[in-house]
Amino acid sequence: MSGPERLTATEAVARLTDGTLTAEALIRACLEQARAGVGINAWAWLDPEQAIAQARAVDRAGRKGRLAGVPVGIKDVVDTADMPTKHGSPIYAGNRPFADAACVALIRAAAGIILGKTVTTEFANRHPGPTRHPHNADHTPGGSSSGSAAAVADFQVPLALGTQTGGSVIRPAAFCGVIGYKPSFGEFSRVGIKMQCHNLDTLGIICRSLEDIALLRGVLVAQQAHEVDRGSAAPRIGFCCTPAWEHADQDTHALLEHVAGVLGRAGATVHEVKLTPADILDHHRRIFEFEAARNYAYEYEVHGEKLSPALRDGLLAPGRSLPLAAYIEAIETAEAFRRNLDDVFTEVDVLLAPSAVGEAPRGLISTGDARFNAIWTLAWTPCLTLPAGNGRSGLPLGIQLIGQRFRDEALLDAAAWVEARLH
Amino acid sequence: MSGPERLTATEAVARLTDGTLTAEALIRACLEQARAGVGINAWAWLDPEQAIAQARAVDRAGRKGRLAGVPVGIKDVVDTADMPTKHGSPIYAGNRPFADAACVALIRAAAGIILGKTVTTEFANRHPGPTRHPHNADHTPGGSSSGSAAAVADFQVPLALGTQTGGSVIRPAAFCGVIGYKPSFGEFSRVGIKMQCHNLDTLGIICRSLEDIALLRGVLVAQQAHEVDRGSAAPRIGFCCTPAWEHADQDTHALLEHVAGVLGRAGATVHEVKLTPADILDHHRRIFEFEAARNYAYEYEVHGEKLSPALRDGLLAPGRSLPLAAYIEAIETAEAFRRNLDDVFTEVDVLLAPSAVGEAPRGLISTGDARFNAIWTLAWTPCLTLPAGNGRSGLPLGIQLIGQRFRDEALLDAAAWVEARLH
Repeated sequence: MSGPERLTATEAVARLTDGTLTAEALIRACLEQARAGVGINAWAWLDPEQAIAQARAVDRAGRKGRLAGVPVGIKDVVDTADMPTKHGSPIYAGNRPFADAACVALIRAAAGIILGKTVTTEFANRHPGPTRHPHNADHTPGGSSSGSAAAVADFQVPLALGTQTGGSVIRPAAFCGVIGYKPSFGEFSRVGIKMQCHNLDTLGIICRSLEDIALLRGVLVAQQAHEVDRGSAAPRIGFCCTPAWEHADQDTHALLEHVAGVLGRAGATVHEVKLTPADILDHHRRIFEFEAARNYAYEYEVHGEKLSPALRDGLLAPGRSLPLAAYIEAIETAEAFRRNLDDVFTEVDVLLAPSAVGEAPRGLISTGDARFNAIWTLAWTPCLTLPAGNGRSGLPLGIQLIGQRFRDEALLDAAAWVEARLH
Repeated sequence: MSGPERLTATEAVARLTDGTLTAEALIRACLEQARAGVGINAWAWLDPEQAIAQARAVDRAGRKGRLAGVPVGIKDVVDTADMPTKHGSPIYAGNRPFADAACVALIRAAAGIILGKTVTTEFANRHPGPTRHPHNADHTPGGSSSGSAAAVADFQVPLALGTQTGGSVIRPAAFCGVIGYKPSFGEFSRVGIKMQCHNLDTLGIICRSLEDIALLRGVLVAQQAHEVDRGSAAPRIGFCCTPAWEHADQDTHALLEHVAGVLGRAGATVHEVKLTPADILDHHRRIFEFEAARNYAYEYEVHGEKLSPALRDGLLAPGRSLPLAAYIEAIETAEAFRRNLDDVFTEVDVLLAPSAVGEAPRGLISTGDARFNAIWTLAWTPCLTLPAGNGRSGLPLGIQLIGQRFRDEALLDAAAWVEARLH
């Protein structure tokens, strides 16, 4: 029998608002699910009493905000004044931030409940945390928003925040078989979120329905929520292999070609779109290295011995020696790439691309390859992943839809059209 | 007789390196000057023993870094792990950050000494702190980097960090008769700096020589320092009244026209440059309001009663009700404005414009008008102010030079040519 932990956030808000569900009952159901799935290691911090106390306060106040008592998982690179914030690093053991991040304050002001802090890789980078894939404990859940994706997939929480600098929202969401959404760059406040790369870091949402994206997006951008249009006309779809196509596995190739065919037969126009320049991922890498090497100056200079060698020697050290001129060239190339994309979006409404190279890889050492995501992080375009099948190991595969920059609501409507034709 | 507190940072580094000056002697001279000028109220936090202890450690270690024991004043919106960080707000009373900001870590790694925290207006916005103008206590020093500008002008410290979202580096530096520099947007890390507007906030430098800009810029961008070329050819100068010209006073009009004449007679080509669109300041304002209203969500939602009415009701409340579409339009207009400026810089090497509407205004309630600065903050171009005379009250006036985005070193060279012909 399915309990309230299975509800989407939007469904839960309806029941919390009409009084057929209390925040406390919802939180207790999520906590029970988290207890049952404790081996997944989705949480860096989860204090049941603290969560129940928040729920009772929301119930007492009449569940009036837009989130009305819905719980949210917060990636542990996001500051919370009443919970530790460790950034997945021993350097921040004992860190209790002075203030809530802006996104956390907006969620609380909307009567959302901060269920706990979800596991992140070390500083939202590559060194993994302890989280396991919710469907197969021998596989990675993806990263860096590992705990957020696993907790939402396992029904431990309906909504969670992630951050993406390379592929850290879309990839783990696709691996875990849920929905991930990265908005247009700059729309969601990053105050109180550990900054890795100021030209790339984007706060995103992991959830189980498109309506939930619209709901939480409205809260985070402090505007009325968009109502997802489930009756919109068939979109013009650009099938975008991306310069990374050859790195995708056969399952992914087959899935994307199958979906393009299905959508075309359902009435969408589908034509191929080529991205230029072909070496755009090298420019993403340069910006990543240059910015991270300076943004982590404190950690690198003062606590270098507590950083993973992968981060310290693999990213920050090469970033330190990257010339400023190479960085500037990458920034200018990225700006030209974004203008090219604006031209692409005069011809199509949405791009269709892989969400990842394939299923979640076996093992917990690597959180997987971000190349199908880093392109769109650099592009500053909104994108989302929808669950769309399974690979040879029976683990989920996603498809990625990319919208024009600043046209996030149109992307949600097009995604609703696509989603209805996928299954 | 002039003591070591009068040295520029570059001069001090030379003497610290050749052993004719110790870091402790330099710090003691600066502290003595700060004690004598205590009525200026430049410092939010200054612990002499803590500063001397840092100096002794640098002396013991052989004064080896690029800053070799030079003290730096840090605006109190920048995190320091060993000093309070109050952001000019009672909300942050008792806040002692867990980590140093990236810029502070880079300065310390270069053997710079954090002398103390300089007064900021409330959250680097408009509500003033207690700092007074170093040349006339009845006047504002400008803001928001009030303490940094006043301390550098009064020889309490040779270098200080400021931040600019509207005009918070250039304006106070011009008012106080020192040099202020805002780099190309995005080059200096903002990690650990309270974020007001992610599309505007820029970390800058206040100092007393162009070489000092190059010195500290090298440290902050983690690259070799540029050697300022004092023998460069005469630049092509664009005399840019800006759409704000009518708001400048007669002193400023006369100064700018005089300087343009002097530079032309000295060999520079000078022609007028018009900016489009003329309403660019309205777009700056929209971005400021929209972003600040979300970035200060924690302060607004949780501590609204501790905010100044000017900030809460004058900026954050209107920002909350600004539609997302209006913000997006402003972002897109700003991007077009930047492309227009790139075209302008095919014709000129540097733009000449007012640094402020006039002298530092009388009174401490207002820190002055930012309209001649907000344009260039939005433009993401590097700019600096040079002292260039006095107004009718005998207080300093500056001229502003603006370079092409990402051509900061060329701006420094052109500024050296201009500076040599000003006096």
